[in-house]
Amino acid sequence: MTGTVAEKLIAEHLVEGEATPGAEIGIRVDQTLTQDATGTLVMQELTALGLDRARTKRSVQYVDHNLLQADERNAEDHEFLRTAAQRFGLWYSRPGNGVSHPTHMQRFGVPGQTLAGSDSHTCAAGSLGMLAIGVGGLDVARAIAGEPLYLRMPEIWGVELTGELPPWVSAKDVILELLRRHGVAGGVHRIIEYHGPGLAGLTAMDRHVLANMGAELGATTTVFPADDAVRDFLRGEDRAGDFTPIAADPGARYDLDERIDLSTVEPLVARPSSPGDVVPVREAAGTPVGQVVLGSSANPGLRDYAVAAAIVAGRRIADTVSFDVNPTSREILVDLTRMGVVSRLIQAGARLHQTGCLGCIGMGQAPAAGTNSLRTFPRNFPGRSGTADDRVWLCSPETAAASALTGTITDARELADRLGLEYPELTPPAEHRIDTEMVVPPPQREAVRIEPTRGPNISELPELDPLPDTVEAPVLLVLGDDVSTDEVSPAGAAALPYRSNIPKLADFTFTRIDPDYPSRARDTGTHLVVAGANYGQGSSREHAAITPRYLGMRVVLARSYARIHAQNLANFGVLALEFADPADADGIRVGTTLRLAGLRDALTAGDTVTVRDVETGRDIPARHRLSPRQVRMVLAGGLIPLLRTEST
Amino acid sequence: MTGTVAEKLIAEHLVEGEATPGAEIGIRVDQTLTQDATGTLVMQELTALGLDRARTKRSVQYVDHNLLQADERNAEDHEFLRTAAQRFGLWYSRPGNGVSHPTHMQRFGVPGQTLAGSDSHTCAAGSLGMLAIGVGGLDVARAIAGEPLYLRMPEIWGVELTGELPPWVSAKDVILELLRRHGVAGGVHRIIEYHGPGLAGLTAMDRHVLANMGAELGATTTVFPADDAVRDFLRGEDRAGDFTPIAADPGARYDLDERIDLSTVEPLVARPSSPGDVVPVREAAGTPVGQVVLGSSANPGLRDYAVAAAIVAGRRIADTVSFDVNPTSREILVDLTRMGVVSRLIQAGARLHQTGCLGCIGMGQAPAAGTNSLRTFPRNFPGRSGTADDRVWLCSPETAAASALTGTITDARELADRLGLEYPELTPPAEHRIDTEMVVPPPQREAVRIEPTRGPNISELPELDPLPDTVEAPVLLVLGDDVSTDEVSPAGAAALPYRSNIPKLADFTFTRIDPDYPSRARDTGTHLVVAGANYGQGSSREHAAITPRYLGMRVVLARSYARIHAQNLANFGVLALEFADPADADGIRVGTTLRLAGLRDALTAGDTVTVRDVETGRDIPARHRLSPRQVRMVLAGGLIPLLRTEST
Repeated sequence: MTGTVAEKLIAEHLVEGEATPGAEIGIRVDQTLTQDATGTLVMQELTALGLDRARTKRSVQYVDHNLLQADERNAEDHEFLRTAAQRFGLWYSRPGNGVSHPTHMQRFGVPGQTLAGSDSHTCAAGSLGMLAIGVGGLDVARAIAGEPLYLRMPEIWGVELTGELPPWVSAKDVILELLRRHGVAGGVHRIIEYHGPGLAGLTAMDRHVLANMGAELGATTTVFPADDAVRDFLRGEDRAGDFTPIAADPGARYDLDERIDLSTVEPLVARPSSPGDVVPVREAAGTPVGQVVLGSSANPGLRDYAVAAAIVAGRRIADTVSFDVNPTSREILVDLTRMGVVSRLIQAGARLHQTGCLGCIGMGQAPAAGTNSLRTFPRNFPGRSGTADDRVWLCSPETAAASALTGTITDARELADRLGLEYPELTPPAEHRIDTEMVVPPPQREAVRIEPTRGPNISELPELDPLPDTVEAPVLLVLGDDVSTDEVSPAGAAALPYRSNIPKLADFTFTRIDPDYPSRARDTGTHLVVAGANYGQGSSREHAAITPRYLGMRVVLARSYARIHAQNLANFGVLALEFADPADADGIRVGTTLRLAGLRDALTAGDTVTVRDVETGRDIPARHRLSPRQVRMVLAGGLIPLLRTEST
Repeated sequence: MTGTVAEKLIAEHLVEGEATPGAEIGIRVDQTLTQDATGTLVMQELTALGLDRARTKRSVQYVDHNLLQADERNAEDHEFLRTAAQRFGLWYSRPGNGVSHPTHMQRFGVPGQTLAGSDSHTCAAGSLGMLAIGVGGLDVARAIAGEPLYLRMPEIWGVELTGELPPWVSAKDVILELLRRHGVAGGVHRIIEYHGPGLAGLTAMDRHVLANMGAELGATTTVFPADDAVRDFLRGEDRAGDFTPIAADPGARYDLDERIDLSTVEPLVARPSSPGDVVPVREAAGTPVGQVVLGSSANPGLRDYAVAAAIVAGRRIADTVSFDVNPTSREILVDLTRMGVVSRLIQAGARLHQTGCLGCIGMGQAPAAGTNSLRTFPRNFPGRSGTADDRVWLCSPETAAASALTGTITDARELADRLGLEYPELTPPAEHRIDTEMVVPPPQREAVRIEPTRGPNISELPELDPLPDTVEAPVLLVLGDDVSTDEVSPAGAAALPYRSNIPKLADFTFTRIDPDYPSRARDTGTHLVVAGANYGQGSSREHAAITPRYLGMRVVLARSYARIHAQNLANFGVLALEFADPADADGIRVGTTLRLAGLRDALTAGDTVTVRDVETGRDIPARHRLSPRQVRMVLAGGLIPLLRTEST
């Protein structure tokens, strides 16, 4: 059999099911990654699962989201996570160590291993030839406990890269090109596998950019072969011994094929407010910008900062621009300092911020209302910046730096012509300044049975009751297409500190769309939500399933679902149905009462459920895509109640 | 006549009154300083005063407080300030340039000049032989408009320094020693003037530490001679031409005398929650700390970071400590980077934050509840960190770094003995990396009559009506001694974004003390507040006068007042009275109705006002310390209504 890289990685880890597209499979998980905004729930779930000590090869808890500490709650979360990591035998990456994805890649990435992470950009580790999948926190908790990760076997989407990138064009433009072609749902239920001669020109960190933003296409994950570029990367990290070559077999076939000639890619920009709304920079040129931000897991590498520094060096940013620079890891910051990059950026007018996600998760850096903000980030969903009606654009470091100088969206090629700039040749340090010490290892050998420190803001997980056999309840929201989890349960400096406190966090549910939803839901109790296509795209946060469920949402009726969110809904006992005929959605309004009867039999017997509009008597055919395992958990009210039932 | 430095500076600038302690004097203002948290009101006051263009030698608007940008409001303030600076002909120091005090000292400090600043730590510029006074925003607005600054002529308090500081003891310990001796009201209505042979061992930046925290003693300001240390400092800043020597005449006499033998000073720490509660570090040693913070205008210099870096270099901070480092200016950050200090701090485990005030003003960095936080900051008033019931300690960089390593409050001398550490000899760069470019100069020659950009969060100043001739109203709060303006109108990440929006900011008034005060005040309307001694200490924010006034507070009855706040109350038409007999305060409770009749005659005729307890009929004698100028403004409802009346 000739296999693709993805097929080989799956075959190597398959423990249940058959790797046929569409079938549910279970795979063994070697490593896990959690960050603080999702990890506080994961630690509570580990307690609920009764785990004593992590059963993976390596599990790491990062702190990179909640870094601002406007009051005591963030610091309480950090202390809870630090002590919980000790309790359960996890590595703990302290605040200030960096964004989980590049830090994990640098410290822990191993070709050929699997990684499950409670962050949608976990897929970035595909850059090293890992099978790295972003999932909800509860799935990661189970993986930490040694259980398989379940997913629907995706199609393998081969993307052949040929040619070489022209000057002033970089990896970010390549993934924006894929988004330009296919949009934010183009990768759903697919693994993107890059191959071809164009790979030779992309470093492992360049590949991180592509793998990271595969999440923006909705892909299950992205994989790359483990080749010389990966070997070089691991050698630079003093981990040459972790290298194993992995390549697709000659003649391997992909379920779908795509091709990008790198030499034809040009500088691209995603317009407000979707990563899928991509146009050439030259078409947006001249748009005034009030803020330019460099950083995030979408452009985390040394070269991303160094190329920007080379563009602004000895120059001065426009008076009207706030040029914010967010280093992505402690190690990279030390290297950038040694290379003089930090000095060049600061002297040109940059604001150097602490290491972490920051503005990418709406943790500060909100732009003024009515101001365009240009960012090297992966996402620009509405309001994610923290500013209502924000206007956030996504671009490469080259475009960002050129625009910071001019104060308008600028094609770096045009600026280079005007200033006589050569495309910078970068010489990174031969050896990176390795710093393992701030990633605190777990206690050796056996678990330390300390009680994790719970500050007043750390709540318990809510109790979840079984799905009633009949649900008759009103629809409280009717949503459009592509609603992201940022709109269901917002991030940002106001909400994030409550990520470990579901009753309080529930007050933020859907408020970007309807500020009254939480109070209406509390008044109503059991209710439904109706949505369009690709419901729940974006972040993996399971809070987007738990908080509406906590407020009484028992059923969602949508045209289609994003992968992680569908799984999160099942994990927390929300029945996710699809319209058999998408046109049926049109007849449903806020206030329509729907009746679903005999759910236990219907869900067990097949994939069809009939929804009745109580007022008109109209029957609306719907279907679900739950596996038998998921049907059991939805009926039980969620995975945790199910495990509790099954163990008694 | 033989004069002190303070007397010479005052004599040189005196335009009204006689420089006798206690008399009101008016002095000419050469320079002004505003920061963003107070500056947005100042810009609105300039509009209210009808100013076309600044009439000072140099006026600078800084952005150093509101840097987190959790939503659009901070960025809107920045844009308002940028455009207002253009409008009124001010220099504009952009976000990221640094904390106003060290930045101003580096770029603009000139021996012999006067500086009025809407920040209580403006006095830091006394380090260069300036007469630098922190006052309310409206006083600064008037100074920008070319009007004199009025103040009560203070006593001159000569502090003679002898000897040399021992290893591991630095400037911060000296000012903590003065606080240990005299407490937070020890300097009220005094100018602290340092002199003596011990000065020779203190650099200009060391003197900045002492001058800055003179504010914590309640001093009107602090002055130093302009001697060789000042000459060296200005030469390093490439401004040798700005140097003028200033010294006290031989035989000059001070109103009061104090002496500190530097060789006897030991490491000191201020305990929670007052800068005046000072004990030797050895007495607090072993107290566990969860956070250590380096930065702020109280320890802003290169050496403060470099000495800390030398202590932690090659070591690792304790697992339980968050070691936060806040660079104080762009210039210092560039120098620290060149010197390798930044790398050493980061590699030891520091979190490097953006340049600015940050945690010092409660803008992030809030510690976990119940955790000790050790900071090189000037203030630790209750709740100022952003955490309710916080436990913040103040110390030197040496103590901070030693404690970050051990995870407990540690005397650096003891750690040095244990580790065999030599007290570091520091070689700062011969030339600083001067960066004027990010401080944007005003338009040349004439005003640019643009309209400053007002985002939705920029409100108008409230209209203020005259003081009624009779006030009969209930007491809504009875407060203890030393209530700071942080408790009247809190800073921090929640409130600061409303500093340009009085109606919204009013909702935070006194909430640290009584969460219901705003609603009770709104229900009640006209009311009084009763306070203890040193009422309104700390920050110069005039919001602490405006917001309770906006909510109906017309009279305060206290044992005594901090200087700046007393002036702010007058500026905004609040009558500030003192008990003639402090014991009379004891009979007054929340809900007591007080009656003050015939105020116009009483205030104009003398300094006595009779307050009647309506229920008991008891007469409580009270007095005011208002100058005739201040009486007119209080009667008119504030300075702006007074100017409006007088100009018609």
